Amino acid sequence: MQGLMMDQPLSISSLLVHADRYHGDTEIVSRRVEGDIHRYTYHDAHQRSRRAANMLERLGVAVGERAATLAWNGYRHFELYYAISGSGRVMHTINPRLHPEQVAWIANDAQDQVLFFDLTFAPLVDAVAPHCPNIKHWVALCAEADLPALKNIKPLAYETLLEQADSAYDWPLLDEQSAACLCYTSGTTGNPKGVLYSHRSTVLHAMGSCMPDVMNLSACDVVLPVVPMFHVNAWGTPYSCPIVGAKLVFPGPALDGASLTELFEQEKVTFTAGVPTVWLGLLQHLQKSGQKLTTVNRMVVGGSACPPALMKAFKDEFGIHIHHAWGMTEMSPLGTFNQLKNKHLPLSAEEQFKVHVRAGRPVFGVDIKIVDDAGKDLPWDGVAFGDLLVKGYWVVGQYYGLDKSPLVDGWFPTGDVATIDPDGFIQITDRSKDVIKSGGEWISSIDLENIAVSHPAVAEAGVIGVYHPKWDERPLLVVVLKDGQDVDRDALLAHFDGKIAKWMLPDDVQFVTELPHTATGKISKLKLREQFKDYRLPTV
Amino acid sequence: MQGLMMDQPLSISSLLVHADRYHGDTEIVSRRVEGDIHRYTYHDAHQRSRRAANMLERLGVAVGERAATLAWNGYRHFELYYAISGSGRVMHTINPRLHPEQVAWIANDAQDQVLFFDLTFAPLVDAVAPHCPNIKHWVALCAEADLPALKNIKPLAYETLLEQADSAYDWPLLDEQSAACLCYTSGTTGNPKGVLYSHRSTVLHAMGSCMPDVMNLSACDVVLPVVPMFHVNAWGTPYSCPIVGAKLVFPGPALDGASLTELFEQEKVTFTAGVPTVWLGLLQHLQKSGQKLTTVNRMVVGGSACPPALMKAFKDEFGIHIHHAWGMTEMSPLGTFNQLKNKHLPLSAEEQFKVHVRAGRPVFGVDIKIVDDAGKDLPWDGVAFGDLLVKGYWVVGQYYGLDKSPLVDGWFPTGDVATIDPDGFIQITDRSKDVIKSGGEWISSIDLENIAVSHPAVAEAGVIGVYHPKWDERPLLVVVLKDGQDVDRDALLAHFDGKIAKWMLPDDVQFVTELPHTATGKISKLKLREQFKDYRLPTV
Repeated sequence: MQGLMMDQPLSISSLLVHADRYHGDTEIVSRRVEGDIHRYTYHDAHQRSRRAANMLERLGVAVGERAATLAWNGYRHFELYYAISGSGRVMHTINPRLHPEQVAWIANDAQDQVLFFDLTFAPLVDAVAPHCPNIKHWVALCAEADLPALKNIKPLAYETLLEQADSAYDWPLLDEQSAACLCYTSGTTGNPKGVLYSHRSTVLHAMGSCMPDVMNLSACDVVLPVVPMFHVNAWGTPYSCPIVGAKLVFPGPALDGASLTELFEQEKVTFTAGVPTVWLGLLQHLQKSGQKLTTVNRMVVGGSACPPALMKAFKDEFGIHIHHAWGMTEMSPLGTFNQLKNKHLPLSAEEQFKVHVRAGRPVFGVDIKIVDDAGKDLPWDGVAFGDLLVKGYWVVGQYYGLDKSPLVDGWFPTGDVATIDPDGFIQITDRSKDVIKSGGEWISSIDLENIAVSHPAVAEAGVIGVYHPKWDERPLLVVVLKDGQDVDRDALLAHFDGKIAKWMLPDDVQFVTELPHTATGKISKLKLREQFKDYRLPTV
Repeated sequence: MQGLMMDQPLSISSLLVHADRYHGDTEIVSRRVEGDIHRYTYHDAHQRSRRAANMLERLGVAVGERAATLAWNGYRHFELYYAISGSGRVMHTINPRLHPEQVAWIANDAQDQVLFFDLTFAPLVDAVAPHCPNIKHWVALCAEADLPALKNIKPLAYETLLEQADSAYDWPLLDEQSAACLCYTSGTTGNPKGVLYSHRSTVLHAMGSCMPDVMNLSACDVVLPVVPMFHVNAWGTPYSCPIVGAKLVFPGPALDGASLTELFEQEKVTFTAGVPTVWLGLLQHLQKSGQKLTTVNRMVVGGSACPPALMKAFKDEFGIHIHHAWGMTEMSPLGTFNQLKNKHLPLSAEEQFKVHVRAGRPVFGVDIKIVDDAGKDLPWDGVAFGDLLVKGYWVVGQYYGLDKSPLVDGWFPTGDVATIDPDGFIQITDRSKDVIKSGGEWISSIDLENIAVSHPAVAEAGVIGVYHPKWDERPLLVVVLKDGQDVDRDALLAHFDGKIAKWMLPDDVQFVTELPHTATGKISKLKLREQFKDYRLPTV
């Protein structure tokens, strides 16, 4: 027997329609590549998105085809999110921090028909264009007057195309399982793999991420996503904010501490989201400048493990709570989010902090488990660690264009190694390929890195396993010191005393001026291992 | 092109599975019909629900068939919610406050196969049973020793059946569009009509109702639904609380102010939901006893319009914010919920209160509009009023067993008359059949009632239209005075001065000791009109 409720598909266009109808005068503020601040409302965004949908029709992009972007967080990018997906086409955000060869590979793999780009990326586009013969149009996100002169292509101006397009447009009623957005993993090994989100998965993810125990978004919030819209859709904020009618503030390309602080204060931002590196930069700016954030009341950190020292500094010095989140491109990205439970409320601040540093507990819609090498379930005792597997409404089932299913008995193996405590809070111990296997025992590189960066002289730290004839692998600590700070090898290693079992202590320390990063801002262990491939431990 | 995410149906069983896995030790506390307090956890509830699913199999209730309940809010009722829907059967909650004839009519219309009842309702069941020959089993929600001796049937004991049932059970993977629960409208005119919720509509409604701008539920909350589980599924709280892992407190049959206060305090309740009549009783108890609610930080009122005076008293005297919500059985029930927007934050308390008294703005997933008699859209200016229509993921598409669609161009006509302001906040002016049509102009009975109950001597007030030879209809105010209070006709009408246009003033006042109520606690205008059908205005 079937239920008898209205049958209405979950669709991305409905998010913006809702925002227009019930929060039409709520602002979307953008720092533009042009340098100035642009303001308009959800109502305006909805109107321009519908024009942009007609523009896609005029450009000859068929329903179901991919339209790509190389763009910062801004209102035009936001309009394209809705115009492309809402009209039944597939929004393909490309990470501009990738190598041009990778950008071209991804655009070709996705069979992109058109590519929209911010002026910042004109040189990248010019370099990529000769390798992407299938892209029919290159559209610069600017007015006609600002069109760049390029060597290999003659781009069109977005504002001109928009003016030429009809303003009348009705969003089509789409199958909610149809493809809406495409995002490639950063792919530290092998070719990047495309994750193809559906309308259904995107809307359910957005609803899930608004929840009080997740991002806790409401019509009272002013949200500034620092996490890029080319990085797993800015963790869904362009979809979740319209659901609740939160004001959106887009930082454009200016992600340094000073620029962010200016925007936080000027626009009275209440909530922001980004990777640890960005918050580290912000913290250093605040400490140096003596500025305070007077309206931000919470931040979320994800993308890689947040050093507890960073969370502590924001809490103690600025009264801002950093919520730890964990997820991945294959999860849209939200998997777990750190919010206390009722049972934690009576705990001391110190005991609560021990909960806060974990990577959180599953958002409703996501299920998790840890298994050993034989695939057997491990206990949730906060101690046993094993491969972390997930499933849920917004978890990948299959990669774009690849036949082989990545699933194991219906679960997606994340490649992370984790513990789960009895309350469902996970702690990521390592990436399975980064864990250091010393004499049959596992050492977490993340634990060692967190201890290293809690030393006042250390700015950033990476730990990799290096060859050892007896133990197979031993940890090597590679650090970047803060400007004007100093500490030597033995003093730094002494800092680990009492914080970790003696046998886990790094065997050596190497001081460098910079660590290699991936296109999404994580420390590239692959490059770090490459860099130290000829290194031999002093005791060996 | 289809998306490539996991295909996982939205299912009611997944809510309890989630609560067990991630909030397994969170409590469900129930005041039992037996008089004592019962405590267990989501983990226990999940185990007993699976036993109960096996019990249904043993009782011979087939998948898709209806299983009915006549029960208060309690843990056994909660188990049945999951056992019945989760196993693919249809949970049919019957309102025990209905007349026995109506109960029998509804049970027969639904073709219920089994009926579970609380001991309180043994006499009702005994009266109904002879008229329901199709019900195969009558199960009392008690232990064997407590089984009542009835004249017409020999009931089975729920606890015995549960013991006999196997504990191992895997929830089946159901089509998310399949029927999950059935709830009949109170039907003030004609026969009650059944609304058949699907798994999909129920889960989406539950997700929507958890949102920060709706019930704002989290794992830090302790939720006591006063609204009955037989009244539109206690507004979804048995589904939304497991999503977030909130502790649930079920009040059983004791809904008086003293019993509720005891439970609020003892269990540290943070959030509660009910109809105005219940909050009126609670307020009077608190005022009389001098008790305070030390943990409740917000309440929601729905079911009928909340007198602003009641909201003001809770805010001013007890510091508790009452959120106004509006919905109906046909909407699962949530339509709108009152939460401020960012723009309201700088307003004075007095100005904010003017927003608070409205019935709220649409929850994401629900769309609204108002139309005139010709079906033409009316402006959202907070002044123009007309028939309120809705659509959304959890709005009825068709009534159970009725062929004729209730929809008009895909929208459901609510039967309410409302205004919508530019921010999307609605104000219910009246039920379309209760509005008083005086000389071609409309007078809102609700407005007049709200003014009447803001008089310190008035406990409850109902306004109906009565015949007038010149104006067709004129308002008659019928009031119940508070114990020991007194006010006469002219003094009460003088209280309306300056609060409303002169021509809207009631033509007369009638004092009664009691107003007639519907089975869901609303003032029955139908009965009130019946009661005053021979009344003639003094001036006529």
